[in-house]
Amino acid sequence: METIAILVTNDDGIYAPGILHLREAVEGLGDISVVAPITEKSAVGHAITVSDPLRVVEVERNGGFFGYGVNGTPADCVKIAARCIMDKRPDIVVSGINMGSNTATNVIYSGTVSAAAEGTIMYIPSIAVSLTSYTRPEFSFARKIARHLVNQVLKHGLPKDTLLNVNVPPIREEECKGIVVTKQGKARYEEQFDMRTDPHNRTYYWLTGKKMTLDSAEDVDDVAIAQNKVSITPIQYDLTDYAFLKELSTWNLKP
Amino acid sequence: METIAILVTNDDGIYAPGILHLREAVEGLGDISVVAPITEKSAVGHAITVSDPLRVVEVERNGGFFGYGVNGTPADCVKIAARCIMDKRPDIVVSGINMGSNTATNVIYSGTVSAAAEGTIMYIPSIAVSLTSYTRPEFSFARKIARHLVNQVLKHGLPKDTLLNVNVPPIREEECKGIVVTKQGKARYEEQFDMRTDPHNRTYYWLTGKKMTLDSAEDVDDVAIAQNKVSITPIQYDLTDYAFLKELSTWNLKP
Repeated sequence: METIAILVTNDDGIYAPGILHLREAVEGLGDISVVAPITEKSAVGHAITVSDPLRVVEVERNGGFFGYGVNGTPADCVKIAARCIMDKRPDIVVSGINMGSNTATNVIYSGTVSAAAEGTIMYIPSIAVSLTSYTRPEFSFARKIARHLVNQVLKHGLPKDTLLNVNVPPIREEECKGIVVTKQGKARYEEQFDMRTDPHNRTYYWLTGKKMTLDSAEDVDDVAIAQNKVSITPIQYDLTDYAFLKELSTWNLKP
Repeated sequence: METIAILVTNDDGIYAPGILHLREAVEGLGDISVVAPITEKSAVGHAITVSDPLRVVEVERNGGFFGYGVNGTPADCVKIAARCIMDKRPDIVVSGINMGSNTATNVIYSGTVSAAAEGTIMYIPSIAVSLTSYTRPEFSFARKIARHLVNQVLKHGLPKDTLLNVNVPPIREEECKGIVVTKQGKARYEEQFDMRTDPHNRTYYWLTGKKMTLDSAEDVDDVAIAQNKVSITPIQYDLTDYAFLKELSTWNLKP
């Protein structure tokens, strides 16, 4: 049987704690390549680098892994890993383990999810894994979930345009109230800009904001997490608003 | 009647030709603010800037417009325009006119569309307009379409989670074979990396690729454009793969 090729990536960067946990979580499941941004690339959305050349550096993390750092986005990493770095095309892409949730409207800003999306665009089954806390680095349960889901995806496959977006609360396994299939929620951030003046008397702005919870349905990502459940959302990228097609066709579209 | 507030933005940057055409296209329809990236931000996906402060500079384009340049992404521009720059929240966001199509899988990489998406996230009706050519700057028909659709959206409104993604071929009005409501296609790029060696003997990579046309259905974005039609796709950001929810629930999800 041919060895499974596993690509591990993230958006927090190749030196982040989460990618080391993820690399260890999939140990023994196949040939593992780690290719990730050399620096943190959060909130980059589904960016790719077209105006600058990409460079790849070898990275050895002490007591950790050997991998490749790329001066690009998570999506760049998946492209260049599959086409230039790995000996064969990956059989699965796993992205994470992100510190902080990737749920609701935030899914579209997420570098973690965009790496998995890039895998899906290349028809490679892909999983994004996030720990829903910035401050409680309780990775052990998320590691176990990640490993199990890699095995499940290798067993079942995924629809060719679909990835799994997995969010794990920062809890111990025995505190978990369930592992549930969810829908992407609609919660948004209430944003503000913090306006400041620099030492040279010029204005600058920091984006800040807090999440508003708009969802109440049980089967929605953020709601599941709030209940100490693991949330697994199948995600696809046909953005067509099918429900509105017909009404839009009735408009006077001709100028 | 209160004046309509119109936000004009783009991803090619505030000095690009397309945004000047778009600004002129909506002349007289309301109070127009132009807020756009100070430099080109193509293929940035739905990125936002959280690790760096944003700065805003006043820009006056000779014979053109007065506007604001932002050292951020198109999504940043919409956020900061609505929250810090404009006197009132915009009634409509118009993004473009992009040089190059934003169709099929490319929609998820598109800065032009991400600006409109940011408007939608703020519940502001939004339109992304692209001219489907890099080399034929035939803006006059695209301008007419943009102005007409701004009027139509102001008249009808849009569903609160939906934007219009408009792609106009580089043709004269009399060559147009129709203005059609379409679905997002599935065409992908066949990518390659061009590997080179710099003068210091280090390797670097350029991303290159050509679009493969996978779609044949008449009602798909790229197919409409190839037929010299204007393509209007309603886009929304609930990425849940509803068709796969049930099957996924039958998996053994518990490790």
